[in-house]
Amino acid sequence: MTNTVTDAALAAREAAAELAVCTRAQKDRALRAMADALVEQAPRLLAANAGDVARAEAAGTDTGIVDRLRLTQARIESIAEALREVTALPDPVGEVVRGSTLPNGLELRQVRVPFGVVGIIYEARPNVTVDAAGLCLKSGNAVLLRGSSSARESNTALVAVLREALTSSGLPADAVQLVPGDTHDSVTELLRARGLVDVVIPRGGAALIRNVVQNAIVPVIETGVGNCHVYVDADADPELAVELLVDSKAQRPSVCNAAETFLVHKDIADVFVPKALEALKDAGVTVHGDASIAAYSADVVAAQESDFEDEYLSLDIAATVVDSLDAAVAHIRKYSSGHTEVIVTQSQAAARAFTARVDAAAVIVNASTRFTDGGEFGFGAEIGISTQKLHARGPMGLPELTSTKYIVIGDGQTRARNASS
Amino acid sequence: MTNTVTDAALAAREAAAELAVCTRAQKDRALRAMADALVEQAPRLLAANAGDVARAEAAGTDTGIVDRLRLTQARIESIAEALREVTALPDPVGEVVRGSTLPNGLELRQVRVPFGVVGIIYEARPNVTVDAAGLCLKSGNAVLLRGSSSARESNTALVAVLREALTSSGLPADAVQLVPGDTHDSVTELLRARGLVDVVIPRGGAALIRNVVQNAIVPVIETGVGNCHVYVDADADPELAVELLVDSKAQRPSVCNAAETFLVHKDIADVFVPKALEALKDAGVTVHGDASIAAYSADVVAAQESDFEDEYLSLDIAATVVDSLDAAVAHIRKYSSGHTEVIVTQSQAAARAFTARVDAAAVIVNASTRFTDGGEFGFGAEIGISTQKLHARGPMGLPELTSTKYIVIGDGQTRARNASS
Repeated sequence: MTNTVTDAALAAREAAAELAVCTRAQKDRALRAMADALVEQAPRLLAANAGDVARAEAAGTDTGIVDRLRLTQARIESIAEALREVTALPDPVGEVVRGSTLPNGLELRQVRVPFGVVGIIYEARPNVTVDAAGLCLKSGNAVLLRGSSSARESNTALVAVLREALTSSGLPADAVQLVPGDTHDSVTELLRARGLVDVVIPRGGAALIRNVVQNAIVPVIETGVGNCHVYVDADADPELAVELLVDSKAQRPSVCNAAETFLVHKDIADVFVPKALEALKDAGVTVHGDASIAAYSADVVAAQESDFEDEYLSLDIAATVVDSLDAAVAHIRKYSSGHTEVIVTQSQAAARAFTARVDAAAVIVNASTRFTDGGEFGFGAEIGISTQKLHARGPMGLPELTSTKYIVIGDGQTRARNASS
Repeated sequence: MTNTVTDAALAAREAAAELAVCTRAQKDRALRAMADALVEQAPRLLAANAGDVARAEAAGTDTGIVDRLRLTQARIESIAEALREVTALPDPVGEVVRGSTLPNGLELRQVRVPFGVVGIIYEARPNVTVDAAGLCLKSGNAVLLRGSSSARESNTALVAVLREALTSSGLPADAVQLVPGDTHDSVTELLRARGLVDVVIPRGGAALIRNVVQNAIVPVIETGVGNCHVYVDADADPELAVELLVDSKAQRPSVCNAAETFLVHKDIADVFVPKALEALKDAGVTVHGDASIAAYSADVVAAQESDFEDEYLSLDIAATVVDSLDAAVAHIRKYSSGHTEVIVTQSQAAARAFTARVDAAAVIVNASTRFTDGGEFGFGAEIGISTQKLHARGPMGLPELTSTKYIVIGDGQTRARNASS
């Protein structure tokens, strides 16, 4: 291990140059060795994690956060299993994205290559340490991991085990490193390591992501803030709409693809809203509505502007009645974080208008918001869900962890003699 | 026209929402109207340009820069013709990049969509104003143009003509706007308009690009800095290597894909270097070499570290002898800007090692550096050549001016009932 972020990044670049030319067989072998080592060394990992958990509990940390921080034998086995699943995914490196022979005989191929060095900044979830290391390794990238300081002891132990497995597999240990130091300065240094770090991916809440975006001069992929809407169109089947709304909100409320607001066309409000309020109440959801919704029930809490702006990530949902599909699109354009937007409708014209005009990573017709997910989309593991438009948008799997280069093979072509333009 | 960058960006967002759902036919009609209008209104454009040129000459501006700033009837016709050529390119918007039916029956499509609002920051070349407007329009994006203040009068006239043509074609004039104000502050405001501007693309020299990268909090695509190398391997054909080197350096020295350094394997140096020095001298090129090159001729200027670091963009080239292909790769890894790197070799093993291990937008075997170009690659017009790894790398055509979104069509799927994971 090294002492400064720059040292770590330089070591990562060296490792990345080796990884870039590794075969899939070498990388898959290392992934299996990493999985085996985690299970074998579970006692060491549990001991380290117990220290973090004890400190978090002593500090009065929220029980939900402590639960995400906690490792158990079963969780370690499931983390190891996830690494084994990555071996089954195709290697994106070397894939020819496009190619042709140019009129002057040059053979042009655009080929996937690793980014090089990927930085991941995340919160107190030790499983992210291993997931990110595995996905970066499979895609040929060295990774710099900056987890929460509250998981420092767990992450140190996990990374030590992964590095030992890399070494025993003949791959460079510096392909997986913890960012040295757990002060805010080490994050800043990572975000400013231009030329050394090829991309930083923040995984966490809105505040973490905002800090990264504001302070980075290295390229960033924003992930995971989901202010997702369910729009119930005039032509919706009300029963289906209720079912989709409840699934979108309550099936797992703490995640980015949970719904945070529902919009109802005025022509269906009298039929839909009472059913929806009852079903949401049964699911334990509090509805924060404006006057148009409050008219249907005394249980509705008066909505503020912030109810439409922010993610709840809890059993709460904002709601309003809109005059038209256009008004729904305008509301979504104003408040959406560009993650997932759903329309429930039987009308082909409404579905087509909504999918064409709503600008989000995923626009869904007649299904739950909860399907925006790398696993559900069939991509295998995901490193996060991009809510930006550059490079990748939506669930990011292994191909999204790569860049490309053009390889051009000639036999003496010059522009003076062989220009095509 | 509006008064602040934020106002302009807000107006651009409105225009972008309209453009996103325009058909190719509408966009191509507008492009033809723009081309016709430029030719019809050439006298107005020439008058405006004459003002800029007179001011530049009075200020003692370098004649090369004045020449790039100058419009003529022939240049206006050629700029208009370039717009017409864009109509022949396929519309990237709506292209299905991938798609499948998921195990639970959801129909998943990943579809190209416009970015939305694109900012272009560039130097005193009025043709870029029109090229960028045309490519952004065809890809469904609204554009905010920030040219050099020395071309302000020309750009104002050009954009006025383009906006009139948009209006007459039924498209929103605010799809093409000059960034208001020509102070440094207006650039900063553009670079910080997060949430309003989807991407900024700087086109110009190293200092312009560095300023943009350091100060932007909106996503940026770096372009065009090319510290390109030609490596002459031990197994090169010396005659071919000389021809490729001269073409790479001298065919058009002022552009980013011109060569700036050549590296020679020691085993071929005695044969190659004298021929190369003679041919470069004949082409008017000054060679800046270290002792390993100076040994061959008194004409060689002693190279400093900066000779290997910077782009000349002139009839100068740096040179050194290396001990091995590994040493050439290490030199390139240290100094390359990641644009274009060439190997000249007859050896399949050397070509394979070089293309695998050199990390650049384009790695070329046995052809000139000068082929890294959207036109030469067959992409039609290009908006620039990306030297970063995120989103796009190498020549950027219309598809690189788009993002994607996932459109998912279901018939009532919920995670509670229909999860595939």
